[in-house]
Amino acid sequence: MRVVNVRLGGAYRELTLPSICGGLKKVNESRKSLQIQKTFEALFALEDIREIFRQSLPAGFDELQQEEFSNAITKIKSIISDLENGEGKPACNRVGKLEPRTREEEFINIHPIQAAGRLTPEARKAIISYGDGYSTCDYCRKPFRLDKIARPPIEEFHQDLAKFLNMDQARVVPGARRGFQAVTQSIVEKGDSVIVSSLAHYTEFLAVEGAGGIVKEVPQDENHIVTADSTALKIEDVKRETGKLPALIMIDHFDYQFANEHDVYGIAKVAKEYGIPFLYNGAYTVGVMPVDGKKIGADFIIGSGHKSMASVAPSGVLATTDEWAPKVFRTTQMIGDLTGRKFGIKEVENMGCTLMGATLLSMIASFPRVKERTANWEDEVRKSSYFLEQFLRIQGSKVLSEWPRKHTLTKVDTTGSFDVIAKTHKRRGFFFSDELKDRGVIGEFAGATRTWKLNTYGLTWDQTRYTADVFLNIASKYGLNIS
Amino acid sequence: MRVVNVRLGGAYRELTLPSICGGLKKVNESRKSLQIQKTFEALFALEDIREIFRQSLPAGFDELQQEEFSNAITKIKSIISDLENGEGKPACNRVGKLEPRTREEEFINIHPIQAAGRLTPEARKAIISYGDGYSTCDYCRKPFRLDKIARPPIEEFHQDLAKFLNMDQARVVPGARRGFQAVTQSIVEKGDSVIVSSLAHYTEFLAVEGAGGIVKEVPQDENHIVTADSTALKIEDVKRETGKLPALIMIDHFDYQFANEHDVYGIAKVAKEYGIPFLYNGAYTVGVMPVDGKKIGADFIIGSGHKSMASVAPSGVLATTDEWAPKVFRTTQMIGDLTGRKFGIKEVENMGCTLMGATLLSMIASFPRVKERTANWEDEVRKSSYFLEQFLRIQGSKVLSEWPRKHTLTKVDTTGSFDVIAKTHKRRGFFFSDELKDRGVIGEFAGATRTWKLNTYGLTWDQTRYTADVFLNIASKYGLNIS
Repeated sequence: MRVVNVRLGGAYRELTLPSICGGLKKVNESRKSLQIQKTFEALFALEDIREIFRQSLPAGFDELQQEEFSNAITKIKSIISDLENGEGKPACNRVGKLEPRTREEEFINIHPIQAAGRLTPEARKAIISYGDGYSTCDYCRKPFRLDKIARPPIEEFHQDLAKFLNMDQARVVPGARRGFQAVTQSIVEKGDSVIVSSLAHYTEFLAVEGAGGIVKEVPQDENHIVTADSTALKIEDVKRETGKLPALIMIDHFDYQFANEHDVYGIAKVAKEYGIPFLYNGAYTVGVMPVDGKKIGADFIIGSGHKSMASVAPSGVLATTDEWAPKVFRTTQMIGDLTGRKFGIKEVENMGCTLMGATLLSMIASFPRVKERTANWEDEVRKSSYFLEQFLRIQGSKVLSEWPRKHTLTKVDTTGSFDVIAKTHKRRGFFFSDELKDRGVIGEFAGATRTWKLNTYGLTWDQTRYTADVFLNIASKYGLNIS
Repeated sequence: MRVVNVRLGGAYRELTLPSICGGLKKVNESRKSLQIQKTFEALFALEDIREIFRQSLPAGFDELQQEEFSNAITKIKSIISDLENGEGKPACNRVGKLEPRTREEEFINIHPIQAAGRLTPEARKAIISYGDGYSTCDYCRKPFRLDKIARPPIEEFHQDLAKFLNMDQARVVPGARRGFQAVTQSIVEKGDSVIVSSLAHYTEFLAVEGAGGIVKEVPQDENHIVTADSTALKIEDVKRETGKLPALIMIDHFDYQFANEHDVYGIAKVAKEYGIPFLYNGAYTVGVMPVDGKKIGADFIIGSGHKSMASVAPSGVLATTDEWAPKVFRTTQMIGDLTGRKFGIKEVENMGCTLMGATLLSMIASFPRVKERTANWEDEVRKSSYFLEQFLRIQGSKVLSEWPRKHTLTKVDTTGSFDVIAKTHKRRGFFFSDELKDRGVIGEFAGATRTWKLNTYGLTWDQTRYTADVFLNIASKYGLNIS
């Protein structure tokens, strides 16, 4: 057995201290944890300084503001000194009823859906700068539509997005689900059938239901894969049953359950043969791996900002071809019966403008790094596979997703390993969460030790190795065999 | 004539410097402006420190990270020292292609729609902490729906929101427009008429169009007010013309054009008499003034987070009664034909979860202060009225909105004052923008000197007086008579 070198406990043990914000507050005692608290404390103190500027006159501070400013500077210097030295009192940092969220700084997070939505430092800076409500609208000029704004470069970003996906046109939307909705409401009539995967995400069900359609699921094969052949068979079934072709085919390239790859290329071809529009659901691909809409043959490409493009929720992208754009991006035809008012430039399905603030600015700020990282997808899969290979050394552990892995999100089964321990542990399945957290790893589904999902996306190689070691270390502690 | 005491020019004159981030960059030369740049520089440097923590192992830094950290600390100390003393080189602070947005710190902003969407310091802290994609989902447990999450206290917030509006149930939505959409798609059938104001916002048109309905506008009277009587007449017209009552009445309490108050109390009564559901559009009220849904007699109350609740866009609230909730918040009935899958808890019109990140957390963080500020609405109107009284002293200037004002958003007409100057000025209408900016005031529609809108919401009394003085000062400079 390989020697695993993980410090047991200590750093992440929690202790209960009288909190400086009243009541009792659990804080971590480690130097790193204290430094993270101090980083947040400093950020918050700077926001307090910012507020003094906001309350002041253009020419400068009055006497009271000057005093507040001086006090704030004194405070921040002391925080920075504590941050530097890892000293000082633990900081509260509570904002009203909100605990500060320091999970991404304090822990290695393997949460299945959070990994690729973590903000880049650029996005974090952008939202500091552009957090205010209608912050995109400073230079909104005719024709008064979000995707036409030149400063900040929103129009350019829309063109970049379309190009990035190799599609003709793109719009940002409040989450992939709102992209599904825009498409179904544009082309699905009441009673129409829509082909989805038997592993389809629930938001696809809702989008079809909202438009009055009916989902028809394509079966998965024994490896949990949806193929072109089974899609073609399903289309035939629907045609036979309803006397009508489905109005739309929407398939997830990688599904949310196993993150298995489905044959979107073949399915797009089938769709074309039947003359049915094809929606490619890229919630798990757009922003992490290369996606080429023309190569796929998609009529619609949908991506998620908060799931895979390092952006603030809710955000996403809906891209389409010049053929379909006039339909899904159709502009309003409604005329006021009395005033004759028309708002001709506004797109019905997008309800005019969509992401008028920090959501969009975070997408724009993350975009250069997002483009870059899609080129490194293979290395991300390699890190994930490395982790899983180590994980599989623990006797009784299984990977339920397809193997070899083509994605960093994976469904695992620890019924034969950690769940065996859970059966007799007084904390039941939570023993595993405790042990992970004690070693600085979080994001598992708390208490789950049978089948669950994890995602290593974005971890460094060091963090990946460390996480693998943590799993082996816990297994070893409880006497599970390691091959 | 009262003596106005505004420093002319200087502080806000721009100069072009070789930028430290390449190319040329305009920076303000004032001490305050430099300090604001240094504040942003410090915030960004702390985000860089945060990123080192994110890349590190749970136990702490490796050698390289320690070095990066030390360098970052050295840098930030120097920035804080510059900030304190108002010294040092102008900072670039550019994030990729994004210029930092410092308008709210450097200027007094009278933009018509940005005023009440400016974040509170609490919201700014919350989004620093909760910016990452799915940051609300750390403790998402059964039944897996956003408004049921207990930590952070999202479920409690939803209850607070309903109570705040004196309605039975509330949901957060990606902007008021998505609230309109949820309602129209729930109760408007193809071909149905929907009563709107002849001053209705375009998003109401789109919501009706998306659902297949047709807008029917209630006329405004000579004072640009929509009354209960005219609404009743319009209902009768529609009934006569179409043989059917309208499916919905949606009226803006204060409209976006004049911010005049419309008789929503009377209109709700009329709606009740005809048995037609009434949607109260509170985009300009919810979050700034008290709104009592039961007192109004509304079936639906809709508010905007980024317009009036100091929140990140897109965000908003849709509240309703127990009578209407089962319709507009209906849960999915769709069943997978092959797998039998059901997602019963998910609401069709909300597409499951709505605001899974910083949008919602900013609403929650701002909420205590938002509740508080609605109680101070009268003082906000007083400040606005003070400003307008001074503005009206400039000969030829008019207020087009109702008078006395009941809102802080106002449409003004300067055709007889500043536009007279613009006619012969080489910068045309932009002379006025230049003069305002030179004195630290922005947010007017650049170049417009005839009819335009402004909003003084949230300015301190000092800032309000200063802004009034700026207007008088410009008028005086160009020889306009001041009474």
